[in-house]
Amino acid sequence: MTRAELIDQIFSKGTYLCVGLDTDPDKIPDHLKTHPDAVFEFNRRIIEATKDYCVAYKINTAFYEAMGAKGWEIMERTVSIIPETHFRIADAKRGDIGNTAHQYARAFFEAMPFDAVTVAPYMGADSVQPFLGYAGKWAILLGLTSNAGARDFELLDCSRSTDILVDGVHTQPREEGKLYEFVLRKGIEWGSEGNLMFVVGATQADAFEAIRQTAPNHFFLVPGVGAQGGSLRELSEKALNADCGLLVNASRAIIYASEKEDFAAEAAAIAQQYAVEMKGYLDALPGRR
Amino acid sequence: MTRAELIDQIFSKGTYLCVGLDTDPDKIPDHLKTHPDAVFEFNRRIIEATKDYCVAYKINTAFYEAMGAKGWEIMERTVSIIPETHFRIADAKRGDIGNTAHQYARAFFEAMPFDAVTVAPYMGADSVQPFLGYAGKWAILLGLTSNAGARDFELLDCSRSTDILVDGVHTQPREEGKLYEFVLRKGIEWGSEGNLMFVVGATQADAFEAIRQTAPNHFFLVPGVGAQGGSLRELSEKALNADCGLLVNASRAIIYASEKEDFAAEAAAIAQQYAVEMKGYLDALPGRR
Repeated sequence: MTRAELIDQIFSKGTYLCVGLDTDPDKIPDHLKTHPDAVFEFNRRIIEATKDYCVAYKINTAFYEAMGAKGWEIMERTVSIIPETHFRIADAKRGDIGNTAHQYARAFFEAMPFDAVTVAPYMGADSVQPFLGYAGKWAILLGLTSNAGARDFELLDCSRSTDILVDGVHTQPREEGKLYEFVLRKGIEWGSEGNLMFVVGATQADAFEAIRQTAPNHFFLVPGVGAQGGSLRELSEKALNADCGLLVNASRAIIYASEKEDFAAEAAAIAQQYAVEMKGYLDALPGRR
Repeated sequence: MTRAELIDQIFSKGTYLCVGLDTDPDKIPDHLKTHPDAVFEFNRRIIEATKDYCVAYKINTAFYEAMGAKGWEIMERTVSIIPETHFRIADAKRGDIGNTAHQYARAFFEAMPFDAVTVAPYMGADSVQPFLGYAGKWAILLGLTSNAGARDFELLDCSRSTDILVDGVHTQPREEGKLYEFVLRKGIEWGSEGNLMFVVGATQADAFEAIRQTAPNHFFLVPGVGAQGGSLRELSEKALNADCGLLVNASRAIIYASEKEDFAAEAAAIAQQYAVEMKGYLDALPGRR
């Protein structure tokens, strides 16, 4: 899906909600557990119930890998039934040297029809670039995440001196910032607004304005709303741009809204609540439609 | 596999070689390509041919994921035929928030019998700790990798000031180092010599002595020998410790040693060369056996 298509979807539907399919077989409602294809059936009903209120689905690969090859096959079938009008994200946090990263890109962009893969930045340029060579496909690079462990490395103070020759003189301009700020700057170098997004956790509201200044036009995928406690209002006020520029993910708050037979209807109700709130923020955007 | 068991295997066989099963269906010898189960059969013959010369196998999950659910199933069957005398590594570079990391740990430690998973550090403590709660299982944390992109973030100069109270006075001791050195120090805090190793690339010979000083007793998984150009002699001289402390991986140099019918014999011959050289370094270790 191209950037223009994604923006069209967002403004025509009035939502920037992403529904996270972190489906744990143990958390499926009891009445479905005996279904011969329970996890897929759960996903199918959630997608059917929520698709009018969201523009994206995010499949957390870990939950499918924990089920083995059968889980991988359920993931393949799940992504295949997400409507093509929706942005399909593999939340896989992959990252490896070039020839391996290329295999990961094949797994998610060729063997499966995902539009985007979340990518871990630690190993640098050659671990990210293989995801950027597909038309209409995206890398979503981890920037500042929503978990407590973000403090361990992402928020370290970093610096780098680069030797450059100016008028015949070697100078060493010093670049400074938190680690995640270096990641943002490198990501902007490596990709474009049309093939690279950043993960920015909803619990990081204090940093949102500065991050939006660093990357004014890029999309951010924002997990951490709902179960993790981030505020939709606050992050929307700080980080929406004229093209929206946000995909806000909720997983557990939606898919586990009820553990009874009404789970799909309850998931739809929660998704709709998010969508209504989001429409308000979109309508209030200055200079857009 | 426990640390003591691994060390016993290394010294009784006289090798610290890990064979990397980065099996690309396009690179399998032509005569095998028509086999109904070609990738598994290739792996089976490589394992059978090389098992006397190595103590570990490393399965690069990307190559299997690129084949879809069928590839995941081939990975499951491959790890199941690696002898229990060998240390089984899932080279998966996973890393996500706690509840997701727990699912990854289940995938590799419960649904499959891997002894270890490579883990990306970017997201911090809660992305690593779920891998440390299994007896006889290991997290192998990315430290300093062998690829060009290591310069982008791993080698950044980092610092952190921590407010601590000493005799009633707030002091802010400043910790400094490269990003990968912060990762080494945190890894040593989080895990033990019995459940955590580090990935250190063979092309990073200059840094090996300092890394060994920082983590004198930990095992290092060292990729990048062979196809990526790292020297076995140099890294062994700089990083072996009294318990060996190294698993040196070669993938392409061994499994693609020949593209003809003799591929398994040629793989064995290259693995044996590594093993013979390694035995020399082990025999020369002071104070051991």
